[in-house]
Order: sequence, then structure tokens, then C-alpha cells
Amino acid sequence: MDDIDAYWRAANYLSVGQIYLLDNPLLTEPLRPEHVKPRLLGHWGTTPGLNFSFAHLNRVIRQRDQDMIYIAGPGHGGPAAVAHAWLEGSYTERYPDIGQDQEGMRRLFRQFSFPGGIPSHVAPETPGSIHEGGELGYSLAHAFGAAFDNPDLVVACVVGDGEAETGPLAASWHSNKLLDRRHDGAVLPILHLNGYKIANPTVLARIPEADLLQLMRGYGYLPHVVGPDHQEMAATLDTVFDEIAAYKGGDSDRLPMIVLRTPKGWTGPKEVDGLPVEGTWRAHQVPLGDVRNHPERLEQLEAWMRSYRPEELFAPDGGPVPAIRRTVPEGPRRMSANPHANGGELLAPLRLPDFREHAVEVKSPAATTSEPTRVLGGLLRDVIAANPRTFRLMGPDETASNRLSEVFEVTDRAWNAELKPTDENLAPGGRVMEVLSEHLCQGWLEGYLLTGRHGLFNCYEAFIHIIDAMFNQHAKWLESSKKIPWRRPVASLTYLLSSHVWRQDHNGFSHQDPGFLDVVVNKKPSVVRVYLPPDANTLLSVGDHCLRSRDYVNVIVAGKQPVLDLFTMDEAIAHCTRGLGILPWASTDDGTAPDVVLACAGDVPTLETLAAAAMLREHLPELKVRVINVVDLMRLQPRSEHPHGMTDAEYDALFTTDKPVIFNFHGYPQLIHRLTYRRSNHANLHVRGYKEEGTTTTPFDMAMLNDIDRYHLVMDVIDRVPGLGTTAAHLRQRMSDTRLRARAHTREHGEDAPEISGWTWPHGSSS
Amino acid sequence: MDDIDAYWRAANYLSVGQIYLLDNPLLTEPLRPEHVKPRLLGHWGTTPGLNFSFAHLNRVIRQRDQDMIYIAGPGHGGPAAVAHAWLEGSYTERYPDIGQDQEGMRRLFRQFSFPGGIPSHVAPETPGSIHEGGELGYSLAHAFGAAFDNPDLVVACVVGDGEAETGPLAASWHSNKLLDRRHDGAVLPILHLNGYKIANPTVLARIPEADLLQLMRGYGYLPHVVGPDHQEMAATLDTVFDEIAAYKGGDSDRLPMIVLRTPKGWTGPKEVDGLPVEGTWRAHQVPLGDVRNHPERLEQLEAWMRSYRPEELFAPDGGPVPAIRRTVPEGPRRMSANPHANGGELLAPLRLPDFREHAVEVKSPAATTSEPTRVLGGLLRDVIAANPRTFRLMGPDETASNRLSEVFEVTDRAWNAELKPTDENLAPGGRVMEVLSEHLCQGWLEGYLLTGRHGLFNCYEAFIHIIDAMFNQHAKWLESSKKIPWRRPVASLTYLLSSHVWRQDHNGFSHQDPGFLDVVVNKKPSVVRVYLPPDANTLLSVGDHCLRSRDYVNVIVAGKQPVLDLFTMDEAIAHCTRGLGILPWASTDDGTAPDVVLACAGDVPTLETLAAAAMLREHLPELKVRVINVVDLMRLQPRSEHPHGMTDAEYDALFTTDKPVIFNFHGYPQLIHRLTYRRSNHANLHVRGYKEEGTTTTPFDMAMLNDIDRYHLVMDVIDRVPGLGTTAAHLRQRMSDTRLRARAHTREHGEDAPEISGWTWPHGSSS
Repeated sequence: MDDIDAYWRAANYLSVGQIYLLDNPLLTEPLRPEHVKPRLLGHWGTTPGLNFSFAHLNRVIRQRDQDMIYIAGPGHGGPAAVAHAWLEGSYTERYPDIGQDQEGMRRLFRQFSFPGGIPSHVAPETPGSIHEGGELGYSLAHAFGAAFDNPDLVVACVVGDGEAETGPLAASWHSNKLLDRRHDGAVLPILHLNGYKIANPTVLARIPEADLLQLMRGYGYLPHVVGPDHQEMAATLDTVFDEIAAYKGGDSDRLPMIVLRTPKGWTGPKEVDGLPVEGTWRAHQVPLGDVRNHPERLEQLEAWMRSYRPEELFAPDGGPVPAIRRTVPEGPRRMSANPHANGGELLAPLRLPDFREHAVEVKSPAATTSEPTRVLGGLLRDVIAANPRTFRLMGPDETASNRLSEVFEVTDRAWNAELKPTDENLAPGGRVMEVLSEHLCQGWLEGYLLTGRHGLFNCYEAFIHIIDAMFNQHAKWLESSKKIPWRRPVASLTYLLSSHVWRQDHNGFSHQDPGFLDVVVNKKPSVVRVYLPPDANTLLSVGDHCLRSRDYVNVIVAGKQPVLDLFTMDEAIAHCTRGLGILPWASTDDGTAPDVVLACAGDVPTLETLAAAAMLREHLPELKVRVINVVDLMRLQPRSEHPHGMTDAEYDALFTTDKPVIFNFHGYPQLIHRLTYRRSNHANLHVRGYKEEGTTTTPFDMAMLNDIDRYHLVMDVIDRVPGLGTTAAHLRQRMSDTRLRARAHTREHGEDAPEISGWTWPHGSSS
Repeated sequence: MDDIDAYWRAANYLSVGQIYLLDNPLLTEPLRPEHVKPRLLGHWGTTPGLNFSFAHLNRVIRQRDQDMIYIAGPGHGGPAAVAHAWLEGSYTERYPDIGQDQEGMRRLFRQFSFPGGIPSHVAPETPGSIHEGGELGYSLAHAFGAAFDNPDLVVACVVGDGEAETGPLAASWHSNKLLDRRHDGAVLPILHLNGYKIANPTVLARIPEADLLQLMRGYGYLPHVVGPDHQEMAATLDTVFDEIAAYKGGDSDRLPMIVLRTPKGWTGPKEVDGLPVEGTWRAHQVPLGDVRNHPERLEQLEAWMRSYRPEELFAPDGGPVPAIRRTVPEGPRRMSANPHANGGELLAPLRLPDFREHAVEVKSPAATTSEPTRVLGGLLRDVIAANPRTFRLMGPDETASNRLSEVFEVTDRAWNAELKPTDENLAPGGRVMEVLSEHLCQGWLEGYLLTGRHGLFNCYEAFIHIIDAMFNQHAKWLESSKKIPWRRPVASLTYLLSSHVWRQDHNGFSHQDPGFLDVVVNKKPSVVRVYLPPDANTLLSVGDHCLRSRDYVNVIVAGKQPVLDLFTMDEAIAHCTRGLGILPWASTDDGTAPDVVLACAGDVPTLETLAAAAMLREHLPELKVRVINVVDLMRLQPRSEHPHGMTDAEYDALFTTDKPVIFNFHGYPQLIHRLTYRRSNHANLHVRGYKEEGTTTTPFDMAMLNDIDRYHLVMDVIDRVPGLGTTAAHLRQRMSDTRLRARAHTREHGEDAPEISGWTWPHGSSS
């Protein structure tokens, strides 16, 4: 226990040093103002508790040769994670210029929360972490994601009592209902009650302990309360790991969890300026501020650091003394060096069946229909069958609704609670993860991917905004990781957004929002990709591409309702590879300069565009129309802005420099403008898209309400191409009348007008 | 009890009728295919349970003369809410064309989920509702929001077992820790376990009941389990309302809650096509599909509807029989007509102290500094003091951090859990609502506003994305409500985003995101407003304006760090009223045509722009520079797009039609482009803003990393104004060198270079 205490004191010392010191790391001379950083940024409050649990878990790892990783929910306690990596030697392995010696310690201290150095929170730069210490709420979901399909792993997850107040965390406790004792690892939640958030007590620290224990038992855990005492912690961990073994062995159906009560800022200054600090919210960040200009605080800081007796902890050269080194596990058993926490090291490529085998036959374009997501479901079924332990499909109870049900031919929904005879496709170990929480789906998938596996998140488009903030943080993690040589690439996080805005006729105005794309394109071009395949074969091609990719966030928007088949498989591959292209069979410009360009992105806008092109061909046969479909949205941006971006020459060759372009878009029209405003023909670009109109109505009425329908597109063309004459004027009037009739018909009969129901191609197709 | 059963059967009958029937509402003749809707859209599964609880609550209302509103967490059970409003007569009061007679019933049925009719979910159109039945998770937070400061009100809140799996709902149970028995009302959660979501069982329905009861006790409630039985429900409600009385009277410290177990789709078809439906997930939506084309299903539908014995429920004229009318409470005691659920009816204007009294003195512009949010805190303090029961300040533990602490001179943080001697500013009934959950802050505030009160949500900018989806839904609610004459205007939902992206130097790359503005401007211009006041006095003016406004979502972005005072109070009011304007004292164009326009929006970008203007004045005195500050972002849009938009003539007069415009923006640069791409001078517009660069560093280094700093702006001007000659070329080189030195200094010393630290105005100000 003395060794553990020494390790703990060393970690605390190193944590304080990181927050405060520029120099004199071992306090070999009295502390002077210039040894202290001018700006003091960091979170002390949570740190000693993190150090305490880490130190004790190391004993268990050594004793049981336990494979374990550590997730620091209070990730702003970055100094703790960095201190452990340094004490375990892995920091020096990753960053050789930060040696395990006095100069290394000086650099370690200096770089922390320092310009050009490392962030103050646990970050991709931190060895041993898969969990960003930014926005709170996701630690426990990440922990379960890491534990899935890692049967020998224990994921120790410290949940801060502030974080425990968030919604995502409150829901995450129930993840145990989807854990499979045979094929999954265990999660050990450590609820760290230090009692305070930034400026407030925490709820769970101030409810009666009897309530807290009932809450944890109600969540399905065996709770153990531990105070700030080495013996108590060690004894509890022995019990807890025996309970985990019993759970794994089938002798118990519950996982344990620990409630760790310690003072906030434990071992730090008791009082500052006459006010209590240790054990209060005042210990949250930097207990002693502006030390350079307050000699008495400088003295207090030095006393605080010396209270850890650094001379017992570090050899004269600055490295940890043997007693401390003895407590550290070896090689990859060190939590700061466990390969699960650098998942790319363990990543094996998916075994991908040939997606071409799922192709729908397309004898001529726009003659037959398919349900794109149903076709993709066949591919996903084969992916799951070929990768029984490295691929999961997440979705908030929407996998069947999104028509991916073929996956249930080879797997089930993961389920570890009661089963009834009428249940279908539910079993422990199922590869489909469904719970009515987008937060959990996202959190599990992040944890699963960052530990070196693969997956896909299918979601109704309207509800994906729920995880906007989580997407942001994951995208930033990927962006940062790309700059860190030792972080190996991980599988991309791919969203399949279905039941999209144009087919939310089922629901009301409350649900409609295609704006996740706007959130996504704000992130760095190096990590985001957006695809809008217009038919089943292009969806297969895009799906395969995304499943092979690394270190991206891919967003695929694809409908589940029947749409026209436009491309043979070979054509689809070529079209998706280009990312956009002219549809010659729908165009009438015959390779010459067109009079107007009809562009489209998204399945429903594409159908309407094709219908408009067909009507124009029939009624204005002289008009040269070029139809362009865009699959890869990022192609529209200038090449200087995105690696997929077209050159101006490419763009101009397609969209012309002077002809009207009517762009029919799946999402908010402004997104197309923001991607293209630098293009030379932008003044002639007119974008149709979702403009916040509609409620419960028919699909075609939704299109009409937002002016993306075929009739309105024809009107747009006539309005923008000069000199079309009286035939066009009559056609325009006819289109306008047809729309009015269609709307009236729908309002009278509750269904689309017969001539457009089924979304057919109005006068047959021709290739 | 027979009357309650009759009411329940009537509500069920009306619910089925809404989902299925176009005509023949009373089944006065045998059902024929043409009586049935061609498209069947609706959610039956949850509906009978909603009807059951509503019927029983009505008895309590009558017996105890209880003021009560009803929140249907499973809001997709829209037919239930509509049925009750019709049975209670309030539907006909709100919509006189839907009478309480046979023709009215026919119209009621027909309009449901029908084009031109009403949505299938509980919506603003639904009398008695403050809770949109769209995205799940927020019912219980809305319920508590409604209960705050309504001491005599009970908010009955049905929580679906699907919704109970969401994070926000899981956290909402703890709202009881902020409820004050003296001044707040009570919330009665009814956890409705019908066992299934769309296609899956629910977690809480399949854990052992002992776990569930422990969970609810752990959350701090007294749970009561009720099965599908009238006597049991009635007896339990008697107990429960006695317990609520005991709680209110101080004889108990816990609120009760009910676990209601019923079959999903209770009383609906037991089997369809040989598969079990009642009591399974197959009852979720429409149990009998495509009835028009399946005679046997038509028969089954008729039998189902007749099983409710409509002849006993409705008089020959179609109105409810007296036995049913007897069960309905009177006037505003009807939950479908309770004024709390149409909060605008109860809304009293805030008593607003004169914000001018909080003005900071500005003798000359840009000579002194203030912390804007601290100044606003003084105003908010006075607002709270003047409105002790109708205004609340929400914030996820960030009110002090955002420097609004002056509010604690007159109030506390709401807190109903254990208190310790070291605690500060915590008390039951406090007006500041802090818990580490943006979801709860948002949900409470929505519930509070929609029941006719006022509030403000202060939040770190980086974390506001957490509630993107909730914002969307609230904005859509407001948009829909504006079209409903009987929905009276409610107070706007105002966000104060502080600790913003330019001052997240404290934290790392994980935190930085100013993209909430992009999410906001996707909503209808009629409901969204965005303000970026650059100093303390403009923040006061904007804050006052927002607190007076109705039916908007206002977003105010304002920093807490010291910024230069730019405007006297009178100037600030004038500037905010215009929404944008030229800063003559910073400009050198003297009212003539400028050579270049420096525009800015946001406090830090404004400071940098002013510094750049000052340097240009000193070093290129011949150059005519116009400085424009934008407070009201929506002014940039064309008037055709937003009511605040400038005409093209106004825009051109400010931004010129041909001169370079360097726009320094708080958020992502693309947002300015999407607002202005139609303006004639757009080709000359060059926008600087956040481009996803930066980590833990100094504030000025953050500015430099994203090229919004003064030096880079000067370089931008020199690069874009033609013919400036060698002096300019030398100045450009000097700027570039200065930046390099400043960055090197920061990396070496950990602080901003002396010449820019403190963010001073480089060479004094002049007006």
C-alpha cells in the first residue's frame, strides 16, 4: 500500500507541477515567481481522485494480469492522464523529447496548457485515451462501446458527479441491458462524488446515500461505496473484480460499480485567502491564482508541492524511484499504452463482400424502381455475416423502419433483459444495437470505432441533430488525431440518414429538418464527406466506399421509399467515383452548350428534376437541357477548400459560365450557395430545397409546398431562359394550373393526384 | 366508474375514427371502403393508455377542484389529445366548424393526418398542449418547467417507456431537486409501460419490477404500480393526490409517481393476419393496414369500433351522452382548456427596470473597457428583483462563470437537496436554475415560457449545440403557433451565449464551435433573431429588447472578458435600433466614398477591426476606410428573406457596390456569405472568421490562428485595395513580421506579446 501511496503522491505532484510550473520541476531550489507560469489554466479539483483510482487499478492489473483501459469522464483532469502516462513510461515512448528525467519533467510541466503545447484536458494527444475531455456526458457510452466484442477487457470508467447530471450519462447506465457476458467485456463504472461542479454542489452527492444506492441497483448494478482511504479502495477493488469474474463466469447477472467519495481538490490547499478550498467548488480549477504576483501564494504552492515529499518519489535524475516503477504494469498492460486505446493499432479491414452482387438490374434508366435502403440492407447483412465480431449496426429502434431488415436474417438486436415468446430478433450478442437514444448509439459507436472496430449508424434524418454536439467533438478528435503520428487511423464514422425530410409526410412540421448537413460541413474538410446517392446502385457504391474509409465522418442521405433506378452497377460506380456527372439520357444538349442546366442532389429532388427534364423534352423539344446529378456534395466546393473540390475549369465545363442553373437540392438551399458562391456562374444559380414548409401531408404535396416539384422546376426554367416564346408561356401556365389541381386533389382526397402518385417518370424512360 | 369507462371508450372510439375514417363517423351504416382514408397514418399503440389516464385524472379534477394540465410524452398519440378536447367541448370552442355533433365528428375524423388538416401528433394546433409530439425526451422537463412558480398546479406527465430510454428524460427525473414545495406546483409522472417502441421491447418494461421500483425511489419518488384496471387506477390516484397534498403541506418530502402497465394497443385488434397485435410492437402505428383493399380488414375495423358500443356513447345527433359529459370538468378546469396550456393568455409583461441605469459611462469611444456580461448581470439582478415569480435564469452551472453573479445579490440557485455550511447562494425557490444539463435548462425554460412566464438561458457557446434539436422543435412550435389565432404570443426564448469561441483559450480544440448560429438561421425568419453586441451598452440595449419580445428565439452572443466601450447609452440604443452602422470615429472616409470597408460582427472581431483601422489611419493616412459594425445579423439578408433585412439600396449605401469589404466575423465565415450572396458587391466581400483552428493557447494567438487579428486585417486591406504603393508594401511586411514575433513570443513565454496583451486599442482613441 505504501507503493500505491507513493505512486499516488507522485501523480499528484506531477499534476500540480503541470498546472503551475515552467521550471524548477523537482523543487531543487526554492520556488521563485519566474518558475511559475504567467497564465494558470487547468482543473485541479477532479485530479487527485483520478490519480487515486488509477493507482489502485494498476495493482489489480498486475495482480490479475487484467487487460484494462481507463476512461476519465472528468476529462478536464488532463494533468492526471498525462502524469500516469509519464510515470508508466509510455509518454516518453510516444514523445521521446519528454524523457523520464528532470529535463523531461520540466518539459512535461511547461507544455501543459501552454501555447504550442498540449491542451489542458484529456485529448487525442494523451496516450491511453479514447475519450476527449471536452463536453461531458459520454464517458460511460464510450466505455460500453469499447467493451463490446472485447471479452477479456475491463473498461474502468470514472464518471464525474457533474457529468452524471447530463442526460446522455443518465441514460448510459442502462447500456448493461445490451451487454453480452460471453462475447463482450465488462465495464466498471466508478462514480466519483467529489461533490461539486464549477460553482455548485452536485445532485448525486447531495441526495441521501440510500437513494443513491437504490438508483444504482435500479440501473442494475451492485454498488460499493468507498471513501478516501487506500485500504478501503483496495479491498473494494478485490471484491469488485471477483464480482466481475462471477458475472463473466455466469454466476451473477450483475456488474458491480463503485461510488468513490473524496474531497474535491483532495490534498490541495485547505484554505486560500481565508476561504475553504479543499472539499469545495473553489478547488475546481486553479486553487491558487496569480501566484507570480502573490508571494504568500508562491509559498503556499511550494508547501503544497513539497507535501507530496517529492524527494521520496523521484530519483536525483528526475525519474520515478523503483518503488513507484514497481507499481506500474508492463508493456501493453499499462493503461496508458494499452492498444485498445489506440484502436488503429488493432484495426483489421472489414471483410467486405462484393457490393456488386447486390446490384439491382437496370435495363434502361428510370424504368424500374427500388427501395435503396432495402438493397443496402442486403449488403449490410453480408457484412455482418462476414465480420461477426467486428461490425455493429447502431440505430434508435429504426433499423426495420429504415428497411434494413435483411440484417435480421443473420443476426439479432442485442438484448440482455427479459425475453417473451412473442419477441423477434432479440438476443444477447446481436449485432444490431437499438435503444431509443441517439446519444447512446453515437457514444457506443465512437467507443467501438476508437478501439479499432467498424460500424454504421442508421437514423431518421430529423433526429440526427440530437447528436450534433457529439458529432462535432468526434470530428475534432479525428482532425487532431491525424496530426499525431502514433495515432493509427480508425474506421470512419458513417451515418446513414433515412426516413428523410421529403418522406416525413408521416409526421408533422415538428420533425422536418435536413440541416445536419450544414453542421457537418462546418468541420474541417479533411474529415467530413457528404453523399446523396440518388438510387439503389449508387447507394451500394457509396456504402462500400464509406465502409472502407478511415478517419472520416461520412454522411449518406438515402431514402427508403421506392425511387427510380438510374444507373447500372458499372455506371453507378463510375458516377460515384466522379462524384457528379451529366445524365446524358435525361439531357437534350447532346454534348453541346446547353440552354439551361438542371442540377440535382438527393433522391427525391433527382426524381423531380428528371420528371421536369422529361416534360421539357416533350413540350419544348428545341430547348437544350443538361441534367447533372451530384452524389458527392463536397465536389461543389473549390478545390482550395476541400480535397474533393472541382477545379474551376471542371466546374465551368459542367455548369457553364453563363447559363441558368436550376439546382434541386435535398437540404436547405443556402448550403449549395455557400459551397458554390466563388464559382464564376454563381449569379445564374437558382437553388430549390427545403424551406421549412409542410406538415402532415402527402409526399408530392411536401415537394410542392417547398417548390422542388417537377412543375415548379419547369416554371423556373421558363422564367430564367430568355426568349422561349408563347409555347413556353402556355406551358408555364399549364404547369401552374396542374399544381393547383394537384394540391386541390390532395386536399380533397387525401392522396396524391393519380398522375403523380407513385412518383413515376411521366412518359416512360429512354436511354 | 361506469362513467369513466364510458368516457374512455368514447375517447378510444374517437381515436380509432380519426386514424381510419373519412365518413360514416357514427357507423350509422355498415362500413364501406370509401368511408376509410386512402392513406392510414397515426399511432394507435400508445393511445388507449393516454385515454385511460386522462379519463381518470378528470375524476380527480372534479373531485378536488384540482388545477391540472396534461403532458403527453408519447405525443405521437395525437388522436388521444384531440379526442379529449372534442369530448370536453374545447375543440369546438377553438374550432367552431368542428361541432360536437355528427358532422363535427366527421370533420374531426377526416382532418386528422390528412392534407390540409392537422398533424398526427400532439401539436400547437391541439388545445391543452404545451408539448409537441415530435422528438422524444422532453416531456418531464417541460412538466417541471410548467410547475415552477405555479404553486396550485399539478402537471400530470405521461412518460412513454420509449421516451424513458432517452438521455434527456433519464436526467429529467432529478428535476425534483430544484422544485420548491412552497412556491412551485407538483409534477405527477406517469410512466406508461406498454412495453414496446416501434419494433422493440423497452428497457424499463423488461427489467425486474424490483429494479424499476428501486430506480424510481432512487430518483426520489414514491412509486405506485398500476395495471390495466379502472378500480386500481382510481384507488391509486386517490392515494397519489393525498401524497401530493402531504408533500405540499410539508408532511412528506417526496412526490409520488405512477408506473402504469397496459398492453400496447390495448382494446385494439388482438390478431391481424394470424400474428398477435395487441400487446406487441405491431400495435405501434396502424394495426390494420390498407383497409380499403382488404374486405376482411374492413370487417375487423368495424367490429373493433363497434366493440366500444358507440350507441351508448354518442347521442343520435353525434354529441357525447350526458353520462360522459358529467365526467368532464368545467370551464378552465378542463385540461384541454386550462389557460396554463395556452400560456400567452396568462402572460403579463415583465416589469423591466430601465436598462439605461446600468449603462457604463463612455466619454470617448474605445478608451475604457467593461465586461459586458457582468454589466448585463446588473440588469438581470434588477429584473429578478422586480419579477420575483415570473422570471428564471437558466444555465448549466455557468452563471457565475459567465459573470452574471450580481443576480446572487437578490436570489439564489434553486436547490432542494442537502445543504452544507460552506454552500453559497443555494436555496429552495432560487431564481437561478443550474444543473449540468443543457437539455434540462432548455426543457425547463420551454415549459416555463409556454405557460406564460419569462426567462433567459445563459450557456457557454461551445455547448449550446447540445440542444440544437430542441431549439429546432421549439422554433417550429413558435412558427406553427403564429398561424393559430387562439394561441396567444408567449415570451421569446432568449439565449445568451458567452465564454464564446474566441475566449475558449482556456479549453482545447474539442470545445470550439460558433456554429449554433448556422443552425438558427435555417429556421423561418419569422421566428429567429441573432444579435452580436460589441460592447456593454449595446448588450444592455439588446438584452432589454429581447426580454420585451414575443414568439421569437433570440440568440445573443456576448463575451465576458473586458472589451472596449464603444457607445454611449444613447448611441448604443441608436446603433442597436438600426442593427448596424458606420462607426464614424473609427472611419477615415469622412462620409465620402471609401476605398475599403472594414465590417465586423462580434466583440472580439470588432476589437481587432478597430485596431486594424487605427493602424491604417496611422500608417496609411490617405486611405479612406469605412468601419461598419453589425449587431443584428439578420440585417444582412435581403428584405425579401427576412423582415429585418436591408433593402439593396440601404446595403449598397453602406457596403458600396464596388469597393473591397473585409468582414471580420464571430462565427464561421460561410454564414456571412450565405446571408449576402445576393448583394451586388458580394464578389468583393472577403470574410474572416473561425476556421476550426486553435487549441489551448492565448486569446490573441487564437485570433491569429484564424486570421481574424488586426495585423492580418491590415494585410487583407493592402492585398485588396489596388495601387497603394511601397509604403503599404512595407507596412504589409511589418504586419507579417509582427505576427510571427507575436506568435513566437506567445510560444516562448506562454502569454500574449506585451504590445497586444490586454487587447488594448493600439494608440489611444479619438472620437
